[in-house]
Amino acid sequence: MTLNLEAVSTLLSDLDSTRPAREDLYEHFHRTPELSMQEDETSARIRAELEAAGVDVRPVGRTGLVAVIENGAGPVVAMRGDIDGLPVREVSGKPYASTATQVNEATGEETPVAHACGHDFHIMGLLGACLAFQQHRDAWQGTFIGVFQPAEETAAGARDMVESGIAEAMPKPDVYLGQHVLASVPGGAVATTAGPVLSAAASIRVVVHGKGSHGSMPELGVDPVVLASAIVMRLQTIVSREVAARETAVVTVGAIHAGTKSNIIPASAELLINTRAYNSDVEKHIHEAIERIIRQECAAARSPQDPEFTYYDAYPLTDNNVDVTAAVRGAFDAYFGEKSLDLTPVPASEDFSIIPDALGVPYTYWGIGGFADMANAPGNHNPAFAPDLQPTLDLGVQAAVVAAAAWLTTKDT
Amino acid sequence: MTLNLEAVSTLLSDLDSTRPAREDLYEHFHRTPELSMQEDETSARIRAELEAAGVDVRPVGRTGLVAVIENGAGPVVAMRGDIDGLPVREVSGKPYASTATQVNEATGEETPVAHACGHDFHIMGLLGACLAFQQHRDAWQGTFIGVFQPAEETAAGARDMVESGIAEAMPKPDVYLGQHVLASVPGGAVATTAGPVLSAAASIRVVVHGKGSHGSMPELGVDPVVLASAIVMRLQTIVSREVAARETAVVTVGAIHAGTKSNIIPASAELLINTRAYNSDVEKHIHEAIERIIRQECAAARSPQDPEFTYYDAYPLTDNNVDVTAAVRGAFDAYFGEKSLDLTPVPASEDFSIIPDALGVPYTYWGIGGFADMANAPGNHNPAFAPDLQPTLDLGVQAAVVAAAAWLTTKDT
Amino acid sequence: MTLNLEAVSTLLSDLDSTRPAREDLYEHFHRTPELSMQEDETSARIRAELEAAGVDVRPVGRTGLVAVIENGAGPVVAMRGDIDGLPVREVSGKPYASTATQVNEATGEETPVAHACGHDFHIMGLLGACLAFQQHRDAWQGTFIGVFQPAEETAAGARDMVESGIAEAMPKPDVYLGQHVLASVPGGAVATTAGPVLSAAASIRVVVHGKGSHGSMPELGVDPVVLASAIVMRLQTIVSREVAARETAVVTVGAIHAGTKSNIIPASAELLINTRAYNSDVEKHIHEAIERIIRQECAAARSPQDPEFTYYDAYPLTDNNVDVTAAVRGAFDAYFGEKSLDLTPVPASEDFSIIPDALGVPYTYWGIGGFADMANAPGNHNPAFAPDLQPTLDLGVQAAVVAAAAWLTTKDT
Amino acid sequence: MTLNLEAVSTLLSDLDSTRPAREDLYEHFHRTPELSMQEDETSARIRAELEAAGVDVRPVGRTGLVAVIENGAGPVVAMRGDIDGLPVREVSGKPYASTATQVNEATGEETPVAHACGHDFHIMGLLGACLAFQQHRDAWQGTFIGVFQPAEETAAGARDMVESGIAEAMPKPDVYLGQHVLASVPGGAVATTAGPVLSAAASIRVVVHGKGSHGSMPELGVDPVVLASAIVMRLQTIVSREVAARETAVVTVGAIHAGTKSNIIPASAELLINTRAYNSDVEKHIHEAIERIIRQECAAARSPQDPEFTYYDAYPLTDNNVDVTAAVRGAFDAYFGEKSLDLTPVPASEDFSIIPDALGVPYTYWGIGGFADMANAPGNHNPAFAPDLQPTLDLGVQAAVVAAAAWLTTKDT
Repeated sequence: MTLNLEAVSTLLSDLDSTRPAREDLYEHFHRTPELSMQEDETSARIRAELEAAGVDVRPVGRTGLVAVIENGAGPVVAMRGDIDGLPVREVSGKPYASTATQVNEATGEETPVAHACGHDFHIMGLLGACLAFQQHRDAWQGTFIGVFQPAEETAAGARDMVESGIAEAMPKPDVYLGQHVLASVPGGAVATTAGPVLSAAASIRVVVHGKGSHGSMPELGVDPVVLASAIVMRLQTIVSREVAARETAVVTVGAIHAGTKSNIIPASAELLINTRAYNSDVEKHIHEAIERIIRQECAAARSPQDPEFTYYDAYPLTDNNVDVTAAVRGAFDAYFGEKSLDLTPVPASEDFSIIPDALGVPYTYWGIGGFADMANAPGNHNPAFAPDLQPTLDLGVQAAVVAAAAWLTTKDT
Repeated sequence: MTLNLEAVSTLLSDLDSTRPAREDLYEHFHRTPELSMQEDETSARIRAELEAAGVDVRPVGRTGLVAVIENGAGPVVAMRGDIDGLPVREVSGKPYASTATQVNEATGEETPVAHACGHDFHIMGLLGACLAFQQHRDAWQGTFIGVFQPAEETAAGARDMVESGIAEAMPKPDVYLGQHVLASVPGGAVATTAGPVLSAAASIRVVVHGKGSHGSMPELGVDPVVLASAIVMRLQTIVSREVAARETAVVTVGAIHAGTKSNIIPASAELLINTRAYNSDVEKHIHEAIERIIRQECAAARSPQDPEFTYYDAYPLTDNNVDVTAAVRGAFDAYFGEKSLDLTPVPASEDFSIIPDALGVPYTYWGIGGFADMANAPGNHNPAFAPDLQPTLDLGVQAAVVAAAAWLTTKDT
Repeated sequence: MTLNLEAVSTLLSDLDSTRPAREDLYEHFHRTPELSMQEDETSARIRAELEAAGVDVRPVGRTGLVAVIENGAGPVVAMRGDIDGLPVREVSGKPYASTATQVNEATGEETPVAHACGHDFHIMGLLGACLAFQQHRDAWQGTFIGVFQPAEETAAGARDMVESGIAEAMPKPDVYLGQHVLASVPGGAVATTAGPVLSAAASIRVVVHGKGSHGSMPELGVDPVVLASAIVMRLQTIVSREVAARETAVVTVGAIHAGTKSNIIPASAELLINTRAYNSDVEKHIHEAIERIIRQECAAARSPQDPEFTYYDAYPLTDNNVDVTAAVRGAFDAYFGEKSLDLTPVPASEDFSIIPDALGVPYTYWGIGGFADMANAPGNHNPAFAPDLQPTLDLGVQAAVVAAAAWLTTKDT
Repeated sequence: MTLNLEAVSTLLSDLDSTRPAREDLYEHFHRTPELSMQEDETSARIRAELEAAGVDVRPVGRTGLVAVIENGAGPVVAMRGDIDGLPVREVSGKPYASTATQVNEATGEETPVAHACGHDFHIMGLLGACLAFQQHRDAWQGTFIGVFQPAEETAAGARDMVESGIAEAMPKPDVYLGQHVLASVPGGAVATTAGPVLSAAASIRVVVHGKGSHGSMPELGVDPVVLASAIVMRLQTIVSREVAARETAVVTVGAIHAGTKSNIIPASAELLINTRAYNSDVEKHIHEAIERIIRQECAAARSPQDPEFTYYDAYPLTDNNVDVTAAVRGAFDAYFGEKSLDLTPVPASEDFSIIPDALGVPYTYWGIGGFADMANAPGNHNPAFAPDLQPTLDLGVQAAVVAAAAWLTTKDT
């Protein structure tokens, strides 16, 4: 496949004329962020923008949207943009900084909200691509699908769209694309890599049971503080002994809690464990090892009750397909030239791959730069995170269109 | 010294006639318990009872009292009764059960209060002895001092009386006595032992410092969860390896706390440690070992800041003087016969010895039984703890008088 | 029972006249020590001495002897003397120091041998008592039995005599007595105590299985070094958490061995564990805890094979019967006066109790002093250990006769 | 640089005619392996072969050789072949299998010896290249140097040549090359990679000091078994917490030894530790962390004496120069076509880089395949390791000549 640069040029020909309106819309989204699975206004506005342009939009779940633009025979390319904000008080200093608050429906608590992970750029990039493909049908052939996904931050949104029937809501894609604005990619650049690019991650809440006793009579109890400590020490051996040195794996016990008084042996202890891996087999082994070690340590301690394991915030591996990535990279090299870079994998996680994996579709996920001043760029989720408005806003549209064009414009070459 | 049983008989000759009034007064104290260092009403009532009988009462600190009954040349015997209640909701089912509440002056919170440790019996025993010595001066010679001590439960009361000038408030005693109603002594019996009878105890709050980091990047931080766990495992070796097997020593980590989220490595961890020993050298070694181990484990972990140690709730060793105990035991054997038993040391602690140690006076501390049905007797501090009214109430007076009489009535033999 | 001092005087009336011959015989035994279960010459000489005096001697096993002296109706008192030496090169400097060597039949190796535990005094004390009871039949009534026991040092001798039919070789005793020369008892004194006086002890050889691998690929193996280390750390919690602080218990891992090269993960690790307790329930709990912890730690480590436990050198608790000890103490007080002392329990072990426990007979075991200069006395098993010849030699006979006389001479009182 | 394939063809034109003699010589070397630093016969034979062809050979150290073939102005290319065997009894089943034994000069013990790591192929490859360059001087220009290096297996040979003056024995090379026959590369193929290809490795013998005591009195000693176990558990945290998850690092405790008897607490413990890293900073951090943890754990245990660290068998990182590797890869791609593969880094180590690092020369190190049946190929050092005679023997010459030709034949392009 070779990129049809002429067709791309046509597709992107409205960038200049739409810029003021796009910047206004971006600032609107930035000022009105919404919490995960509560993106009602955001979703409604996206839908309104698309429908105003005549795009066929289909809701999937409470706030998810699928925009389907069919344009004759040819490849089916889906691209995802995530739309939720974070419970963070923005301190970016931008004139359009968020001061919004929202009541978390799960907890009933009001919280500040901000687009501290740049999802507003993802909305704008995907929206811009939808409009480009909708409005320049002569420049391409096939089907372009925009998947506006809720709740990436809680790992719930992609699952919700799968369970709400995304498979029935759109034609089956040939490829599935995604992008993220990153502080680690130079401003104005795009960056790709094949293979594992974001780690699989999961959290486990573990409760181990001892038996309470007065602190002076440990022999009448089972000490859960000693038990939990022995577990923490033993868990270190998973990474040091059970995983190959060349694999990337992390087992962190981020929290440990037991007891309230010095002289009372408590009845239980709680551990919050987080795991990371770049390989599904490794992740599976880590989880089995955690459960094995904890169960056996409990037995060694005469624990009177089985330990309890509650998995949460489980993110899958993001493992970019070699061929899909090569196609996108080729298109990026052709369009962006020396601004098309290699992406270094980082130990963050995403729920991006859940939809393509559920559909059996190969995917790739790339980064776009957000800061001209990389040295001082705050990281994603930092309350000060707010990428440069431009060229980031245009870049998000360009990257989306160019990547999809690797499949949708090649009829002409 | 041989007990003058005739004199004792005279001293205790009012037991029957005073019983109804003493039972009423006991129930009054049981219904109106007060928190440590807040025993204002209790102290006022004790003082009123003593002064009504013409006893010279001297306040020491906010609620402490010293009752001095001088009766010519002879030994000076002081005896202590502790007077505070506990922040416990009584569930004994007794008709005179406490339903009292009190605002804790330190925290501002209202809490239920109960005499769940039997200090009301200690008040009544010592009050009865004071009145017996006051009203039967022909039967004895010397000086009897009643020390009504606040705040045993918080280890603050004896120190408060020392700091408030108890040494100046009374003649220097030759011996110092104390008693406690215990679920582990048969109802109606008294029990003594020489040597260590109650353990030294102390609590230590330890904060160890790590360095926070994202859970996926432990190499950028110092993990305080792993550090705290290594410390807990290493602390086990104090008892298992550093203290002689024949010594009695306990090191309990009653609480461990660090972190709030699975994927954030926190910046510090807190441990609450409790220690017990029956030997001051052993206690000193244990504390040195705890500090040594924690400091070195912090260094092993690259901890960026020294650990912090805060000692609290320090109770001294109660180490009964051999000669004083033998004298009391002799008197008990003579008066109680087969109801005079050996006391088995238990790993509880008291602030009883602080006053005699401060004064340089030998002491002994014995137990009196509280329950006819020992098998079902709830332990001290249990919300259901409420000893049988009789014979416990009389026994407390008898034991106090008989023990003191070992010194104060021997002139006649 | 009251000691008949006149009868005792008669029984011991030959002490002066026999002293030179007894000293010669002692030096003979001291110069010709023999290893455990190889005491052929020692046993033959004891038998010859007894038979020369007309005593009925019955061999039990290869080197054990039972000397039965029946003297009419009355109590049956058995006393044990252990007869084996140690594989030690004596450095006492005594003129009669051992220079003997012997081939260990089990290993085929020649080793120096010495009576570094004083069993030669035990032989002489029991032999002297046998001759006293044989030659002064008019002074006592009943039956005295001398049990000359092999192989105390390997915990094999008492079991051997039980298995070789000691029950059939002699009348069933009413009491069973034993004594040991100790560096911790003042020279010339005897010392008794009721209850646990010597600890139960046992050794356990444990092999835990890992799976060998190259040191750079731990994920292909199961690391037995880490497994063994986790076990050692966890075993500390038995004493620190599972045994009451007032109990005396020791769990020592005296040896740990695994691997030969830094870069090869070995296939197994070996631990040699020693346990001590003064209470059979505690010992049983310790052994169960050791097995529990090791089995579960192996499971936590994915050990491919069950751990192996081999118990050896198991010594039972020596728990002196209260009544038997009181009788001996009464006789000692009467005869030795202020040289009759309390014995402090020490964490050593003996196979003494195996025979009386097998026979269902109450027992007591006491110490006799060996050194006028206690401050410089070498401990038992020290190569320099060699008690003062006198008064130790006479004391051993006196203590044996006096103790047995508590039962055998009381007919006259 | 582009490979001059015509020149290469000339250089390799004798492969067919020399094959029978080369196979004979290979079998000779295979049958007569010699231990590290004792390769006297091997070295003598190589020298004789070279000198018979008129090559200038210079001994460096006892058995090292430098063969210098100067051929006018141009690049200086050095290539290394290691020549020592292993103390292994060959079980390959080959007709030319080694049955040789040799007395190890260091230990005095006779041991079987075999070329179980394929160094005989390395000799033959380098020898063949020397002869090719010597005999076809018209086809190339510059200088080719063969470095026949002893004692790779003990990490001593390259250091010995540096210390024996290799820098003075030859012109300074522009590049330094090396190859190894590997079971992990397909038979008949060559494989390269830039960057870290073999790990840095080091071994550390650690002695930690406790204080001996009887097993029943741990309080009188310092238990080195518990100390060593705590160290092993803590060392796991280096890889699990102190090294970034994406780095490759291994810390293995391959051996732990302390004590001989269950009831004696020994005075010290020994650990043999092996480390691996692909990054010099990581290796340095690991070594600092090991020393830090062990020193602090000793202090936590009251160790009476500093721990001792003895580093041995230190292998440097083999970090292939990007440009040199690219040149070799280009030549291999041109000559071998699809038999030129990527090499996957493996956690083995080499002393190859010591000489170029000492000389300040960029280097690359590649693998050549040895087995047509890769699935059943025994690994290097396995007693059954014996690569297929052909095409391996020819391949070794071809790869050496082609790689060097990347610099030495480019004059013609």
